[in-house]
Formats: sequence, structure tokens, C-alpha cells
Amino acid sequence: MACILSEKDEAFMLAAFEEAREALQAGEVPVGCVFVQHGVIIARGRNTVNATRNATRHAEINCIDEVLALSSHSLHDNSHQFCASGAQDEKVDGLRHSSTDIFESIDVYVTVEPCAMCTDALGQLRVRSVTFGCSNDRFGGCGSVVDVPSIYKYDFMLRKNVCQEKAVQLLKDFYKGENPNAPSGKAKRKLPSSKT
Amino acid sequence: MACILSEKDEAFMLAAFEEAREALQAGEVPVGCVFVQHGVIIARGRNTVNATRNATRHAEINCIDEVLALSSHSLHDNSHQFCASGAQDEKVDGLRHSSTDIFESIDVYVTVEPCAMCTDALGQLRVRSVTFGCSNDRFGGCGSVVDVPSIYKYDFMLRKNVCQEKAVQLLKDFYKGENPNAPSGKAKRKLPSSKT
Repeated sequence: MACILSEKDEAFMLAAFEEAREALQAGEVPVGCVFVQHGVIIARGRNTVNATRNATRHAEINCIDEVLALSSHSLHDNSHQFCASGAQDEKVDGLRHSSTDIFESIDVYVTVEPCAMCTDALGQLRVRSVTFGCSNDRFGGCGSVVDVPSIYKYDFMLRKNVCQEKAVQLLKDFYKGENPNAPSGKAKRKLPSSKT
Repeated sequence: MACILSEKDEAFMLAAFEEAREALQAGEVPVGCVFVQHGVIIARGRNTVNATRNATRHAEINCIDEVLALSSHSLHDNSHQFCASGAQDEKVDGLRHSSTDIFESIDVYVTVEPCAMCTDALGQLRVRSVTFGCSNDRFGGCGSVVDVPSIYKYDFMLRKNVCQEKAVQLLKDFYKGENPNAPSGKAKRKLPSSKT
């Protein structure tokens, strides 16, 4: 993998790619994402635009909602029964404060450059960093089409194109209809456009 | 009201302002929105950033989720018990198709120019038109700070600044802490920044 990343960073990107592959197998534009807090993955998401018939259900948006659900659960669950496993304890420990603050300690790893909507959402939530696998020349909101972080002066750390070949190959597999799990009649169909 | 609008358009803007005033009274940045389909309001939303402690809960996003919930309900409810009243029947009639298509016949009325996140979400959902009350020089995504519709070539009809004075006054009331319903200790406090 041609990445200039630490071992931990690579592990998080690999987890994001697992999500992207799940999306590919489900017939979605293959984009995957993980949100990391204090070195622990607290949310995983993938593009679910086709399954939900909702053009805004990008991997990042699904992760945001997962964090907020976790946070809400943690904040309202006084019995702490939610924290059943050690891993869950670790995940929720970082969430014992308001949702507004949670995102400030979150590092985002996503296989493809976020679109303007997702970039602006991550900026407004004040995430700590965004690392993406490959640029998106059609819809990228981190500089490729529009530079949302510069325009709004978001100060999250941004690492671009850390796993370009791998991320681009997944997209090529999708657009060429080479998904081996796709039903034969659907393998070559033109799918609804998605910006993820 | 200094608007160049039809009577129906004015009524929809008034409904959006009702939502904005509700937001003001709840201590939120006063932005309100309605989604209209075939001349009927099918969703109302207002900024709920503070109440939800979620910086992305803008009026437009709340409306989008309301439409999707309605649509999902309509699509999965074979008994049609959901359509109890005539008004509800009318509202749901327009929703008898996939979520992907619903937004193409929706006209959005919002008191303040949508931010980049909301503009991009509305564009990706392919809404038919967006009409807003006043520009947002700090965060506006429809030309004031960044021109998302032009960049992404979204072809929704855009009507700008149709009720400027009214929309600006509401924002001034909020930022001056002149909300008469605000607790006295909070009337002058600096609220969390919100892009709506």
C-alpha cells in the first residue's frame, strides 16, 4: 500500500476499505469510512444511497449519525448497561460529554475525498482530522472541485490521497460492473449517480 | 412584506417564518423552512442545533428527514391507516414513489440562505426550487460565500432575498439577545456558533 502513514493510520484506512468493499458487494458506490477517537474506532460507515434511496446517505453521514446515537445513548443511560463489553466501555468513555464537543477529538478516515456536503458537515462538527484515500475529481469538497475547508477556514488536519491506487481500483470495479457478487443482469447497469 | 412573490409563495414563506420564530423562542438561531410538493406543505423544519447538540441539525436537514420518514411510512404502510385525515391523504398522495424521486417535485422555502452543506444536500436530492429570505454573508452556500449550485451545476430554480428585512430582523433579535422568552441570564450570552 503506497501510503505515508503510521501503522495505526494504516489499520484505520484498512478498516475504511473493509466498509467500502461491503458497499461494493451491496451494489453501492464503494466508499467506506471510520471515525476514530483516542485511537479507537467508534463508528464505521459506508455509502447506503441505493439501499436507502436517499442521496445524502454517504459513508461520512452514516458515521456522524452513529456517533450521535452512541453519544445520546451514553448520555441518557444512567444504568450503564450499554457498556457491556470492554471494547464498548472504551468506546463510550470518550463520549461522556456533549455531542458538540465529541467531534473535536475525532479523526476521520475515508476511502474517497468527501463531497462538499460531507466536508462542510465535518467542518461544522469541528472534527480533528480528515484522511482520505483518493481524490474525487467530480464532487470532491476538499479541493478537487471546491475547497470547502479553505473557504470556511476549517482548521482540521487534512491528509489527501494516502491510498490512491487501492481506492481508485474499487471505484473502477464498481463503474465497470466488475462486482462478482452483483446479479448478472445488474452487473453492467448504469447505477443512480452518487457523489460519494 | 417586500417580496416579489405570488400569494401562494408568500404563504409558504410565512410558514417558514413561523418555524424561524419557534426556533428563536427556543433559543436557536432563527431559521425556518418548509418543503412544498404540488402546492402543499409536506414538511416543516427549524434549526435545532442547540437542542440536539448537533451542529448539522439545520432547518433544511430536519425537513429532508421529515420527508424521508413520511415517504418511508407511505411506502411501507399497506393498510393506509397512516392517511387518517384528508390533509394527510393529500400530503401522502404525492409521496407514492421512491424517495429518490420525491425531491424532484419539491420546492424549498427557507428564511435564510442555506449553508454549503444544506445547499449541496438539496442539490444532490435534486429539489425543484429553493427560495430564501435573506443572504448569509458568513456561511451562505448559494453564492454569498460559495456558489455550490454553480460549481456542481445543480439546476434547481433559485430565488434569493425575497424577504430580506424580515429575515434579517429575526437574526438581529437573536444575536442581540432580544428574545423576550429567553431566560434573563441567557438573553445576552454568546451562543454556540451555528451556520444556519
